[in-house]
Amino acid sequence: MRLATIRTATGNRAVRVDATGAVETGQADVRALLERPDWAAHAAAAAGPSHSLDGLDYAPLVPSPEKIICVGLNYRDHVLEMGNQLPDHPTVFAKFAPALVGAHDDIVLPRASTAIDWEVELTVVIGRSVRHATPEQAEAAIAGYTVLNDVSVRDFQRRTSQFLQGKTFERTTPLGPWLVTPDELPEGGWEVSTVLDGETMQRSSTEELVFSPVDLIVYLSGIVTLNPGDVIATGTPGGVGHARKPPRYLTDGAELVTRIEGIGECRNTCRLEAAP
Amino acid sequence: MRLATIRTATGNRAVRVDATGAVETGQADVRALLERPDWAAHAAAAAGPSHSLDGLDYAPLVPSPEKIICVGLNYRDHVLEMGNQLPDHPTVFAKFAPALVGAHDDIVLPRASTAIDWEVELTVVIGRSVRHATPEQAEAAIAGYTVLNDVSVRDFQRRTSQFLQGKTFERTTPLGPWLVTPDELPEGGWEVSTVLDGETMQRSSTEELVFSPVDLIVYLSGIVTLNPGDVIATGTPGGVGHARKPPRYLTDGAELVTRIEGIGECRNTCRLEAAP
Repeated sequence: MRLATIRTATGNRAVRVDATGAVETGQADVRALLERPDWAAHAAAAAGPSHSLDGLDYAPLVPSPEKIICVGLNYRDHVLEMGNQLPDHPTVFAKFAPALVGAHDDIVLPRASTAIDWEVELTVVIGRSVRHATPEQAEAAIAGYTVLNDVSVRDFQRRTSQFLQGKTFERTTPLGPWLVTPDELPEGGWEVSTVLDGETMQRSSTEELVFSPVDLIVYLSGIVTLNPGDVIATGTPGGVGHARKPPRYLTDGAELVTRIEGIGECRNTCRLEAAP
Repeated sequence: MRLATIRTATGNRAVRVDATGAVETGQADVRALLERPDWAAHAAAAAGPSHSLDGLDYAPLVPSPEKIICVGLNYRDHVLEMGNQLPDHPTVFAKFAPALVGAHDDIVLPRASTAIDWEVELTVVIGRSVRHATPEQAEAAIAGYTVLNDVSVRDFQRRTSQFLQGKTFERTTPLGPWLVTPDELPEGGWEVSTVLDGETMQRSSTEELVFSPVDLIVYLSGIVTLNPGDVIATGTPGGVGHARKPPRYLTDGAELVTRIEGIGECRNTCRLEAAP
């Protein structure tokens, strides 16, 4: 099952995305849907108004999560190629909800920076509150998987020791287009990739993750309750622009495709922020 | 004017805290109140049910902010005494809402750590959406000031480069008891202090802030829209337990008072997390 949040003339709607159309579930967005303990059965049985798949206007999959948790340094190949040791603990930081955009929205490039970069990330959406989760409870707490492009403003990210300010610029972070429930996905590694103006910039496999989604939910739920609609972006593989020689950054008009095999893709055009 | 969120038998209520009682404004919490463009006039005129000040049960001042933004390295005396240079840019990181507790609630000490520390912080609550604010717009966006105790789990804070995981443990962060609107506060520096079991551990003045509340709103609103109910904790002065020789940490039963002159205080008992 695929679930999304779409924009309509009368506001956002949570939908089940079938092969033939997107069917409203009765909730305003995917977070509200996932807050129902029976969300899976409810969404599977939903028979509300249906929308043609052509021209669906995707909102951020979860427009207002309680938490957006991002993980750094989590691809084995990338950590090792940078000459670093594999970490004992995940590196985690946050984004705020106004950073999010929909899967086909423009990415807004802030005028304050000339060092804006891409980061494709396999992303987990939580479907059940968990605290101090066992691996089994962690697995059961996964509503599904989606794509997040953790667009990063490198000069702000590196101004201080803390990444947050480079990670939460307004309207920089595509999330979507939908989540895919785990039962629809094959076991094992899924290819993750970024294509910039037709050129492949990142390509790896989720087999390279140091901390799996289940590992991360176990770890994070030892710190704080994870709640329905929470978003955990699991980190990005090598191939980001900042690490290239010479570095390569996003510019006005650039076209980015961030894709995860079997799940979906975000396709976004970069647009320079409007003049003040 | 003082505004708070209190717990009642039938749920949370935003209240105006007068000398003689706490008067309901009609909203469920301070964020909902501040989302009204006319919040100041509305709260001033409110004449809902009144509660005795004795035994008021304070919820976190804003139970579910869109953003909790914390600032590090922002007290001039503390930065210089540590042998560091004054920073050019604020260091900012996040907390998530489930970290918050009310001004008189217990602080929950996670069993996973033995290095839990206090940090009193002057804290700003946003009362108006701002983006790319001028200093004048930043000042007008301040709904009021409150107290936050940025209780920090030092071993988790230092596990990786990113502070978040040590800053967002469940039910560790008192916020409140109320906000005081700027018109009720004197100009200039206000004393900030922490008293642990009767012993003063931190004492400084907000005159020592490197980046003032207005500076921070100008800076942060250049990154992302600040919205009503957003919380900005402006950093802590010297005197934290981790920097003492030997280090000193919070233990079960410890009593913490974090106070800001003219604003108010949080009084909390530390309690070890229940066994799993």
